[in-house]
This record gives sequence, C-alpha cells and structure tokens, in this order.
Amino acid sequence: MKPQRAIRTDLALENREMLRDERESEDINGVEIDVEKDGKLGVTVTWVRITNEEGAAAMGKPVGNYITLESAALKGNDIETHEEIAKILARKLGNLHRLPKDGMILVVGLGNWKVTPDALGPKVCAKMLVTRHLGDQTPEAIKALVRPVSALSPGVMGITGIETGEIVKGVAEKIKPDLIIAIDALAARRASRINATVQISDGGVNPGSGVGNRRMALTRETLGVPVIAIGVPTVVDAATLVNDTMDHMIDAMKEVLPRGEVFYEMLSEMREEERYGLIRELLDPYEENMFVTPKDVDSVINRLAGIIANALNIALHPGITTEDVNRYLL
Amino acid sequence: MKPQRAIRTDLALENREMLRDERESEDINGVEIDVEKDGKLGVTVTWVRITNEEGAAAMGKPVGNYITLESAALKGNDIETHEEIAKILARKLGNLHRLPKDGMILVVGLGNWKVTPDALGPKVCAKMLVTRHLGDQTPEAIKALVRPVSALSPGVMGITGIETGEIVKGVAEKIKPDLIIAIDALAARRASRINATVQISDGGVNPGSGVGNRRMALTRETLGVPVIAIGVPTVVDAATLVNDTMDHMIDAMKEVLPRGEVFYEMLSEMREEERYGLIRELLDPYEENMFVTPKDVDSVINRLAGIIANALNIALHPGITTEDVNRYLL
Amino acid sequence: MKPQRAIRTDLALENREMLRDERESEDINGVEIDVEKDGKLGVTVTWVRITNEEGAAAMGKPVGNYITLESAALKGNDIETHEEIAKILARKLGNLHRLPKDGMILVVGLGNWKVTPDALGPKVCAKMLVTRHLGDQTPEAIKALVRPVSALSPGVMGITGIETGEIVKGVAEKIKPDLIIAIDALAARRASRINATVQISDGGVNPGSGVGNRRMALTRETLGVPVIAIGVPTVVDAATLVNDTMDHMIDAMKEVLPRGEVFYEMLSEMREEERYGLIRELLDPYEENMFVTPKDVDSVINRLAGIIANALNIALHPGITTEDVNRYLL
Amino acid sequence: MKPQRAIRTDLALENREMLRDERESEDINGVEIDVEKDGKLGVTVTWVRITNEEGAAAMGKPVGNYITLESAALKGNDIETHEEIAKILARKLGNLHRLPKDGMILVVGLGNWKVTPDALGPKVCAKMLVTRHLGDQTPEAIKALVRPVSALSPGVMGITGIETGEIVKGVAEKIKPDLIIAIDALAARRASRINATVQISDGGVNPGSGVGNRRMALTRETLGVPVIAIGVPTVVDAATLVNDTMDHMIDAMKEVLPRGEVFYEMLSEMREEERYGLIRELLDPYEENMFVTPKDVDSVINRLAGIIANALNIALHPGITTEDVNRYLL
Repeated sequence: MKPQRAIRTDLALENREMLRDERESEDINGVEIDVEKDGKLGVTVTWVRITNEEGAAAMGKPVGNYITLESAALKGNDIETHEEIAKILARKLGNLHRLPKDGMILVVGLGNWKVTPDALGPKVCAKMLVTRHLGDQTPEAIKALVRPVSALSPGVMGITGIETGEIVKGVAEKIKPDLIIAIDALAARRASRINATVQISDGGVNPGSGVGNRRMALTRETLGVPVIAIGVPTVVDAATLVNDTMDHMIDAMKEVLPRGEVFYEMLSEMREEERYGLIRELLDPYEENMFVTPKDVDSVINRLAGIIANALNIALHPGITTEDVNRYLL
Repeated sequence: MKPQRAIRTDLALENREMLRDERESEDINGVEIDVEKDGKLGVTVTWVRITNEEGAAAMGKPVGNYITLESAALKGNDIETHEEIAKILARKLGNLHRLPKDGMILVVGLGNWKVTPDALGPKVCAKMLVTRHLGDQTPEAIKALVRPVSALSPGVMGITGIETGEIVKGVAEKIKPDLIIAIDALAARRASRINATVQISDGGVNPGSGVGNRRMALTRETLGVPVIAIGVPTVVDAATLVNDTMDHMIDAMKEVLPRGEVFYEMLSEMREEERYGLIRELLDPYEENMFVTPKDVDSVINRLAGIIANALNIALHPGITTEDVNRYLL
Repeated sequence: MKPQRAIRTDLALENREMLRDERESEDINGVEIDVEKDGKLGVTVTWVRITNEEGAAAMGKPVGNYITLESAALKGNDIETHEEIAKILARKLGNLHRLPKDGMILVVGLGNWKVTPDALGPKVCAKMLVTRHLGDQTPEAIKALVRPVSALSPGVMGITGIETGEIVKGVAEKIKPDLIIAIDALAARRASRINATVQISDGGVNPGSGVGNRRMALTRETLGVPVIAIGVPTVVDAATLVNDTMDHMIDAMKEVLPRGEVFYEMLSEMREEERYGLIRELLDPYEENMFVTPKDVDSVINRLAGIIANALNIALHPGITTEDVNRYLL
Repeated sequence: MKPQRAIRTDLALENREMLRDERESEDINGVEIDVEKDGKLGVTVTWVRITNEEGAAAMGKPVGNYITLESAALKGNDIETHEEIAKILARKLGNLHRLPKDGMILVVGLGNWKVTPDALGPKVCAKMLVTRHLGDQTPEAIKALVRPVSALSPGVMGITGIETGEIVKGVAEKIKPDLIIAIDALAARRASRINATVQISDGGVNPGSGVGNRRMALTRETLGVPVIAIGVPTVVDAATLVNDTMDHMIDAMKEVLPRGEVFYEMLSEMREEERYGLIRELLDPYEENMFVTPKDVDSVINRLAGIIANALNIALHPGITTEDVNRYLL
C-alpha cells in the first residue's frame, strides 16, 4: 500500500505544480499541459492531460483530461462576470465530451448539504433545469428546447449507511443515462484557490476527496457510463496549510542563512511525508476533522452553485440561453 | 377511470369514517376495526384491517393493516410523553411485521426537505442511527447492540426528474434490504388530526399522497421487498377544509330548518364530488397548490421526526433503549 | 370593546371592497380611490386615500395613503418582469413620501424568520444595501452614490419577550433616522391575492397583523419619526377562506333558488360576525393557529423579498440603478 | 497605537498561559488563578481574576473575573454529561454575580446566525425560556416559577449598519434590565479548545472578538447595566494555527539541534509579532477572512447552544429544574 500523499489536493493542476517543484523540470512523461488566459475577465484555463500510466502514477490521478478554470472573480459577486465564466465552463464541457444528441444526463450532487463547504453538489442539483419527467402534456415546442436531464443528491455514507457509488450505480442501472456529471466540493493545497477554481475532468471522481470521505470511485469502469466530474475546492486541510506556510518561510529565509545549518536542512530536506506527519501529530488529535475555510463560505458556495448550474443548463439544453437562465432559473 | 375522490385523505381511519357515514352502518364487508385507548397518555390506537378486495374497493386503499395512533400530545412539547408514544409506536411496528433477526433495513424518507410540511421523511432519516456501513474496526460489543440500518432521502420527482420508486428500486436491488420502511407526510381530512396522528401500515405507500405528488406506489409488488409505511398528516387540502366545515354547518342547522327547503336540500344532497368540485372552482385556480397548516409547523415537524426516529431506533436495534436514544441521538 | 372584525384582512383595498359590498355604493365619505392599470405587465395599482376620521372608522384603518400593486407575475419567476415591478414600487414610494436628501433611513424587517410565511421582513433586510456604517475609508466617489441606510430585524415578542415597538423605538432614539420603512407579511381575505400583492402605506403598521401577533403600532405618533409600511399578504386565515367560499357558493346559487328559503336567508343574512364565529367554532380549536398558504411558499417569499429589496435599494440610493442591483446585490 | 497582538485569543486562560511562557513565571502581579478539577466528568474549571490595571495591561483584558470551563465532552453528544455541565455553568454564573431577586434579565445573542461558527449567540437566544411578556392571563403559580427574561439577537454591523452596542443600549434604555448577559462566539489560540471551552466573565465583551468584528465594547460603563459575557471559542485564526504549530515544531527539535544554529535562533527568537506578521503575509491575502473550524461545526454549535441555554434557564428562573428544561424546552 502506498503511503498517503502528504500534501492533500484534489486539483491535477496542483499535483503537477508539486511534481515540477520536486523534479525541477517542466517535462513530465505522460503529462501534457496547456494554458490559456483571458486577461479581460482575469480567467486562466489550464488543460492538464494525463496520457499514460506513467503520468498517472506520477500525478496520483487516473489517465484523463483535467481542465482547471481559475479566477478570483468566482468568489466575488459580479453577476455579469459570473455569466461569462458560466459560458466558458459550458464551452469547456463541450470540448471535453461530445454530449450525445438527445442523450439523457444524470447530474449527481455529491457531498453533505448540512455541512456548508461540502454542500456544493446538492446545491447545484437544486438549481438544475430538470426535465426527464416532463410528460406527454409538455408542448413539443418546449420539448425541442431541452434534453432529458435528471439530478440526484445521494447524501454521504455517514448519513445513509450506503456507499455513494452503490446508490448512483443502482439508480443508473434503472434510468440508464448516457452520461453522468458528478459535482463535488474538493480540497486544494493553496488557500488562494479556495472558491476561486473550477476543475472539469473525465478522469472520474477520486475517492475520499474534499471535505467528506466517499470511497468508491465513480468512473466509467465502476458505473458503466461515461463520467464527468466538476469540482470546486472549498477547503484546505489544516495540516496542509501549516506545512505549506512553513515551506514558504523556509524559502523566504534561504537567502540569508549560512550553509550547513542543521535545523534548516532538517526542515527543508525532511521528506514531505515525514514533515506532514509531524505536523499532524502536533496539531490536536481533533484536528483530523478540521479545515480552513473563508468566513463568507455560505454566500460564496451559493453563488458558485449558481455559476455551475447555469453552465450546465446552457451546455445541456440545446435551446436554453444565458438570458433564459437568468430570466427563469436564478 | 374512477373520478377523483372528493374528500382527500391518506388516513384509512378517515376513509372508514366516511364509509360509515355514507352507509350509516358500522359493518363494512372486508373491513375490520379495533380500538384501544390509553387514558393516561390520552392515546387512541385504531387498528383497521382491510381483509379482502371488496373492503379495498370500498376504502380506496390496498388490502393490509393500518394502525393509527392519535394523541394531541404529539403536537405538544412534553418530552416524557413523546418517549412513551415512541415506545408504543415501536411495539406496534413489531406487531405489524416480525422484523427479521439481523435482517438489513432500508429507511426511506419520502418528501421534499425544502417544503416544511413535506419534510417529515428526510428529517426522520437525518435522525436515524445508521449502521450498515460500520466496518471491521467497529468492536464486536457495539455490533451486538445494533442491526444493519441504512437510510435514503430520494427527493421528489419535480427536483430529480426521476420517479421516487425508480430510485428506491434501483438502490434496493443493489443493497438488498430485508425490509423497507418508508416515512411520508400525509394529508388528513380533519384539521384536528394534523400533526396529532401517526399511521403505520403494511399496505404500501399510495401514490400522490400528502403534500407532494409521487406516483409510483412503493409496495412489496413493485419493490420485491416487504414495505412498511409510516406517515403523519401535516396538512389539510384547502377545498377539503371548506367542504367539511360546510357539512358541519348544514348539520348544525338541520334541526331548525323546515322540511323541503331547496337550498338546504341542494347543499346536503349534492353529491360529495359535485360539491367538492364546485368549491375547488370557487377557490382561486392558484388554490390547487394551497394547503392549511398550523403556524408552528417548523418546530412541530422537528419534534414529530424525533418521535418517529426514536421509535424506529428502539424497534430496529436490539440493544438500544430509550435511555441510549436520549443520551446520544436526540 | 368592539367585536373582532369577522373578515380578517390587512389590505385597505379589501376593506374598501367589503364596504362597497355592504353599502352597495361606490361612494364612501372619507375614502377616495384611484386605479391605474399597466396592461403590458399585467399590473394594477390602486391608490386608496383615507382622508378623515369617518373614513378611518368605516375602513378600520388609520387616515393615510394605501397604495396596492397587484400582479400575478409577483408569484412567478420572470426576473425581467420582477425588475419592472421593482421600478414601479420605487416610483410609488417616491410619490408617497418625499425622501429627505441625505436623510438616514432605518429599514425594519418585522416578523419571524423561522416561520416561512412570516419571514418576508427579515429576508428583505438581509438583501438591503446597508451603508450607514461605511466609514472614513470609503472613497467619496462611492459615498456620492449611496445614502445612509440601516436595517434591523427585531424578532417577534414570543421570542424576545419585548414588544417590537419598544425595540424599534429604543434603536430609533439612538440612531435618529429621518424615516422608518417597516416591511411585514400580511393576511389577505382573498386567496388569489396571496403573494400577488404589495401594499405601501403611510398609515403606520397595524397591530396584530399578518401571521404573527405584534401589538404596539409603529406610527409617527409612537416612534416620533415618519413611518412607511410595505407589506405582502402571504396567508389567508382559514376561517376567512371558508366563510368567503361559502359566500361565493350562496351567490352562485342565488339565481336558481325560490324566494323565502329559510336556510338560504339564514346563511346570507346572518351577520358577518356571527357566521364567522360559527365557522371558527366548527373548525378545530387548534385552528386558531392555522392558515392557508401555497405549497411553494419558500421560494416565492425569497423572490418577493428580492423584488422589495431591489425597489428599496433603487429608491433610497441616488446613484444605484437596476443594473447595479442585479450586478452586485441579487 | 499599540501593535495588534500577534496571537489572537479571546480566552483569558490563554492570555495567562502566554504571559507565563513569556515571563517563565507563575506569578504575575494583578492576576490570580484558581484551578478546580472534576475528574469524573473530565471538567476543569479555571478562575482567572484580573485584580488591578497592571494585570489588565499585561493580560490585554479588563479587570474582572474570567471563569473557564474546559471539557472535551462539550463537543460530544452525551446528553447526561451535558446536563451536568449545564448545572456547573449555572452555579458558576451564580458565584460570579448575585442575580437580583425578581430582577429582569436581557440575554443578548451576539454574532451572525448566517455564519455557522458565529451563530452561537442567536442560537442560545432561540432556546431561552423568555417570560418578560407574560401578561395578566398567566396564572400566579406559573409566574412564581419564573423571573422576567427577555432575549435579543441584534445582528452584526455589516448587516444592520448599526453598532451592536447602539442597538443594545437603545433597547436597554427602554426596557431597563437589571443585568445583561451577552453570548458570543470566540476565537481561541489552541485548536484543542475549539467547542470544548466555555468562558464566563464580568469583564465585559471585548471588541472585535470571535469570528466577527463588533467594535463598541458592551460593559457596565457603556451600557449602564452590569454585563456578564458567556463565550465559546468556535474558531482558530489560520495564522495563529500556523504560528503555534511552528512553535511546537521548534520545541520538538530543540533537543537534537546543536547550539548556535542561525535558522533555529531566527525562528525561535523572532519576536512573536514579527513571525506572526510574516506568516500572515505568506498566507494568501484572502486569508484575512479564513478560519479553522471542525467539520461537524453545525451540529456541535447546536448542542453547545442547548447547554448554555439550559444553564441560563436553570440559573435565571427560580422554579425551573433540569427536568423541566428537558421536558419542555429542548
């Protein structure tokens, strides 16, 4: 069994940053990267491709595409910028996966709606334009605008006693969607990325991610249906924060230190896992359940759920535009 | 197709009251009744048995047992009386269905947690002692006290786009419970029964009941597993309330009226369905979505969810007592 | 002691409708009326002026202006229409009261945020652009756009043990606002007006209105500051609904009935108060706390709070437009 | 202007620990300490008395009594232990302040109910047995059991535009309480104290404490009424957590390091304020709004609010016992 990675992150972007720092090289076999900036909106889109098993092992993530959109505007409250970002997300979703025409989509909201930073998934589901159940009374003109979409918030295992994957698989076998889109709250390494980043990926949902502990992976292999994961980091693990800040401190002092300092060497050369373990020990045992989150997390999560739901509503329904979404769905 | 029954109720007890009034007879073929009173607690338990298809047709409910516990104390806040009622409910549940020793139970919380009077089911689920996922680390001593229990709140079709029955069936086929217990908010005919009545039944969950509109019946036939339904009426349909009050008014005036009055005759002899239809028309079209509910519905629903969850926790887990429930689960 | 008015309504518009029906006349001394329709938006604005004490006594409401905006679109979800309605409300507010330039405004959110149909006031407060506390760091350019606004949700007496009026008066004496705007949930007589009507008035807030029971009137006399009340009917009293429906039924049958019918005469000539009292008796004693409300009350109240907050934000802050409100405040 | 204290804590207990570490002495002029342990319940009660201005300056807290109750059981869910702790709190409250017989009490719930870790105060208010408004209809027998208690949750300045102190002072001048009890969420230095500590004090409420930023002190001087503050630390400031963990790390490595290490000396001798400032800079600018909190903060805050409300209900009402509280108020 591999040791738990010291630094906890669900963002492929951060896995790659760590790899680059370790190897002091931009080139990693099996990992390709592509960066695109929109200066006007202050948006950076990074496309990380893990192309083979070597890349997957190095990154600690399955082979696949990981598109990260970063923008500080995500945590602001400028609705027009949010609309623009929703449109970019909708386009990237289309780039990542050719949505089957008329295919039925199941949106799965992972996480616990009672724990604010873990409630992103259920909140997105609550804002989806759900249409699969529209029956024969619905006029053809309306039906032409929408595709069949369903949405499920299965809850978390501590509350249901059931693996989330079992619930999703059970329902998927009944309703047979052509694509599953799973929304989840993630953990980032950098505090600056909290609520300021969206990751879209076809690599499946990794177990034990984010705030919660969900163990069975949701992938095409386990569910028998293609899976796209959309996630936003909403927390940083407390030990990761301490460790990273210490790293920065060591870096900041590097210049002024004489060579051969034992303590400095100890700290900076200590293997990542060891130092992380030490920090976890020093933090209270209670810490296992602690995370770092911004004070305004309630309102930010609501807005993020709106952005993602709008992106999905535009991307999934052929005849629905940003204007419709604003007009009827906000 | 039979016309929609004029008076809307989900309580077998009220179906029988209506039948008795119509037929002016206590004896209805295929329907047996048994009443038990606990004067000290002010609790009345009525056991209605629908024993054959004739009874089922007359009652508009499937063959089965319908146990109704009535007590005004349910809507009060005396915790000790609530504990006693939870114990009675736990016993009745045991009378109704011999719980398989070690069998696994799936508790299903029907309804919409965002609509207060429809949130009973999800709230009961949130208070269940869920144990199915307890793994190998759990000490044997603890495991001896509990049976495997899981809990699912599937949401309502308007929000998921999926029939509730499809979700439950999909999950049940994966986790294979020995018994499903479905909790739901119901509609009563009499305002006095709101939040003051619990119905336990093995007749399955009727479609379109309570506040919401859920259509696929949850029964042993549809799910392949025995189903027990537990419900509490939390609303009265507005048109039912008007109609019933008018009935009472006519009754109150009967004595003083000369025979042969046209208007009186019209009102009192008008077929139930006709009068109900007229009232629905007179109420605003918007009315279709209106219900009558007490002002303190939020806190009452929370307490009712606690009583039912405690009853289930005691009934399902062999080693768990009222004291444990109070101590750890409230 | 005067008997409690049989029909319960907080809308001056409905008081006047009742007077007109009683007196079978459009002319009521001391009551003037003015109706304006916007066909495109489906909005009717009725301006009721109670000009003297005779009018006040007849109407059961203080001398003053009562502007009622009615539109079924209020309970819909078309954001553009909601914006137009917010603009109309902002204009009417300006017509009713010349806002003192640079004067400081205290917005008071009456009602109980834990009881959904009574939560309108606190929800409006939560959406206000509050600026009174902006200090010396705020740039002059920003300050030029806004006026000092503060917002208080005092709670209800059952929860605080304090008359709402005492709290508002105590705070007003400290912060000395130039105008108090009180937001409240009201009771209507007609189910069709629920969540489809806004009343703006300078007659003060009447005691015991809406869902709750708040007793000390909030008026210029009691608070020493001009008071504007903004209210939306969110419930109909259950007995009022029954009584009114019965009225309609009697009317509907009038044509076909022979003269001299005793029962018909009894019902139709029974004094309003008597019949209402009879209905209250026939409804369960518990009924005192019951009201009629639409199923989707949660989401409708949220949208209504947004419309009123936007109207206030535009009306109160000289440099804030609908676009700003949409962009930053929704 | 004095520099902001590097380590952020609202607990006098932690101020004293820091002083002791700095001065390497148990004796601090003007600060007395008294520790009491209840081994059975696992409760430690520490009474810190700041007796003169020298002590106040050293501690950074006003002259007064600061009683801290620590118990890991506070964050558990054992109701019987919670009852015992509520009884201890009730006794300590009586020790700290002789409650005036029949005097009227105003309980003030500070903080923002929309931000979970700041919602303690409003949640306690919601669970208080409020009696000031009970009128002449209340039987004398009931009145003999209770004292007049009122409760107010004024909100936070960012939402009201009004200093919390202005609201409390305005209301206090109207209703003239004999004692104000202010409940607030606090910040601790040690993660282990989060949700595991209650501080009761007559030193008034310090400005800018806890999660929020409330600036006008609530004291006998500002309000003209004695003030008791009850607080629970619910968060640790992120920079404080990093700094403290680093301290622990330096300590842990002290033994094995050769003397004269520059980096070690730099880190360990760097003045507290400097290092804290450096850490704040290294953490993201966004960090200013970040805090560390446990995952289950929602349910823990609810339970803590229950414990404190029960302690107050028992302490304030002469005829109310733990049993009554359980029976009717939970």
